[in-house]
Amino acid sequence: MNNFVITIGRQIGSGGLATARMLSEQLGVPMYDKNLLIEVSKESGLACEFFEKQDEKAAKRPLGRFFGLRSTMQGNDGFSAFNAISDEQLFKIQSEVMQSIAEKESCIIVGRCADYVLRDHPRRLSVFISASLEDRVARIVSEQGISEVEACRLIERGDRKRAEYYNYYTFKQWGDCSSYHLCLNSSKLGSIENVVKVILDYMEIINF
Amino acid sequence: MNNFVITIGRQIGSGGLATARMLSEQLGVPMYDKNLLIEVSKESGLACEFFEKQDEKAAKRPLGRFFGLRSTMQGNDGFSAFNAISDEQLFKIQSEVMQSIAEKESCIIVGRCADYVLRDHPRRLSVFISASLEDRVARIVSEQGISEVEACRLIERGDRKRAEYYNYYTFKQWGDCSSYHLCLNSSKLGSIENVVKVILDYMEIINF
Repeated sequence: MNNFVITIGRQIGSGGLATARMLSEQLGVPMYDKNLLIEVSKESGLACEFFEKQDEKAAKRPLGRFFGLRSTMQGNDGFSAFNAISDEQLFKIQSEVMQSIAEKESCIIVGRCADYVLRDHPRRLSVFISASLEDRVARIVSEQGISEVEACRLIERGDRKRAEYYNYYTFKQWGDCSSYHLCLNSSKLGSIENVVKVILDYMEIINF
Repeated sequence: MNNFVITIGRQIGSGGLATARMLSEQLGVPMYDKNLLIEVSKESGLACEFFEKQDEKAAKRPLGRFFGLRSTMQGNDGFSAFNAISDEQLFKIQSEVMQSIAEKESCIIVGRCADYVLRDHPRRLSVFISASLEDRVARIVSEQGISEVEACRLIERGDRKRAEYYNYYTFKQWGDCSSYHLCLNSSKLGSIENVVKVILDYMEIINF
């Protein structure tokens, strides 16, 4: 297999998604982020909106188990299945979809514990992007038109959610440098162009 | 000021020290590790051996405070001062020495919370080196001639000691990627030469 996969973890507002997009363009390979859920939806026969509610959320005991909703899960009607699939089951379906994509083609996958799910992939590079709080707030304010305080709140909650999700499924620490091959602070690098440059240089150095 | 400073944090056995040495040779600037203590000793008038006992240890309440040893601290007799200087005082002296060195010359500093102590330095790059447990054990076994189990024990204790020291003084998380500009896994890079190459490329990209 000659396919490669680059996984990108990222703090909220760090420019991780923009990095993945630019890398995807420069390398000419597809990038999967939220759109991975479309594939998951096809695979499972459940509506995409259903998965969005659970996207990158740490597992909670599914209500379905208490209310006996398991029997309501049927065919293509995603919403009737709400709470009937556990977060673990969603994680499992998503992981299988990811593995099957990575087997077929070179790609970039953002978030979703991809570095862990694809840990046995023979040609894998795992990257994590962080940034200063100032830059993260500024990026979110400019992208979403919310106040700085709201951006701070979003960052705090978003990072906590991502960390819970990652730590729950991977038995590693989200954002801890020993969980990744290469961690870059986009504020120090000054631009997403420079972040991408460092990753491309890195790939050249290891003959990736 | 045109001086630059590169600070290198590292997991025990990750090759962080070897990276610093090679970088020091290639850039032609001095590297400070334990030898920083020689400067600290000169500055304080206390024997070097005295500081070695406290090197990179998180602060504990100095025994001197209980036993009234404070008055025994005098001149050049380092050992009579044992337990009379607090870990915080040692950290302060060491930080001042570090700042004065970084003001005079470009340099590389390994450990000792240098990334935090020199956080206001206008030309600063902070790097952290990690590696797989297998490689870390192998490096320690080969360097120190101890068993693999002993190496594992040394790694566990050493990392914990470094983390306690760093987290206590910096209010940041040791080994968390958001504490550094660039984190590299030396196992993925395959050699210290490649680790150094990535750092040099990075410096070029940001016109360091």
